[in-house]
Amino acid sequence: MTKSPMTFNNKLDLTFERIVDVPPHLVWRAWTEPELMKQWFCPLPWKTIHADVDVRPGGKFHTIMQSPEGHEHAGTGCYLETVKNERIVWTNALLPGFRPALANAPCGEDTEFMFTAMVEMSPHGENGTRYRATVIHADEAGAKKHADMGFEGGWGTALDQLVAMVKRGI
Amino acid sequence: MTKSPMTFNNKLDLTFERIVDVPPHLVWRAWTEPELMKQWFCPLPWKTIHADVDVRPGGKFHTIMQSPEGHEHAGTGCYLETVKNERIVWTNALLPGFRPALANAPCGEDTEFMFTAMVEMSPHGENGTRYRATVIHADEAGAKKHADMGFEGGWGTALDQLVAMVKRGI
Repeated sequence: MTKSPMTFNNKLDLTFERIVDVPPHLVWRAWTEPELMKQWFCPLPWKTIHADVDVRPGGKFHTIMQSPEGHEHAGTGCYLETVKNERIVWTNALLPGFRPALANAPCGEDTEFMFTAMVEMSPHGENGTRYRATVIHADEAGAKKHADMGFEGGWGTALDQLVAMVKRGI
Repeated sequence: MTKSPMTFNNKLDLTFERIVDVPPHLVWRAWTEPELMKQWFCPLPWKTIHADVDVRPGGKFHTIMQSPEGHEHAGTGCYLETVKNERIVWTNALLPGFRPALANAPCGEDTEFMFTAMVEMSPHGENGTRYRATVIHADEAGAKKHADMGFEGGWGTALDQLVAMVKRGI
């Protein structure tokens, strides 16, 4: 399948790549089945208490994460490109159905920053996956904010949790 | 082809539908070939002086319109869904390659409002097209601003220009 024309800019974007020893089709399942997503999607001690996804362009991406103190953080976005066992692209700049997420806001509010995320998986060796996660932003401040939130550590820890879940058996 | 799951809300969205007497495949060409787009895309006496499009999800949608006084207005967006001779969806909330256009919610009232637009064409009778244009917004203010700019009149006049161009022969 032809992939969409995404381009990257190392001032605006963050990426990390790892080889993991579970196959792409199980990484895909972990990313696309809500009951599996809830088991690994955010680094402990936070929990993913809700996941609701419709894995196709325009479809809903919705999760609710809960802090150890019980605070909830909902994230809503929209899938842009989904290629089974290969690639998932989604953004929080659009709501489900491609509706723009942002209207004008009062000046000075610390609004959520916008990103588009891509997870790519490809076979590595007999039973492994080359896994790459990339987040792209509108500006350097967005990339910095995402980096300061611990992009690589957070996504890396979540990936460790994903791999451990798959090895336990799904 | 399965269409994406778009839903509409009459408080947030604007739409108009017309029957035109040129066939869908020529409407599609008028919407997707830059040299044709430049001939009809904005209502006279404004002109479309530049069009650069890459008609696939993630591809560039870029036009420059020029006022009678010579002022230029550039529009850049990203295609989300393209189904030949049937449907074109794009947004200005994302730049080409699905990059978010804005870092945060814009503050104040003069910022460009975000929209996702859809043009649908289907056969009507032997040689006609049922043509529908829809723009969806994040909030009622965006829809009102678009309506006040003359959405239906502007898109309708552009459609008249498209039909006239096709009848002259393309």
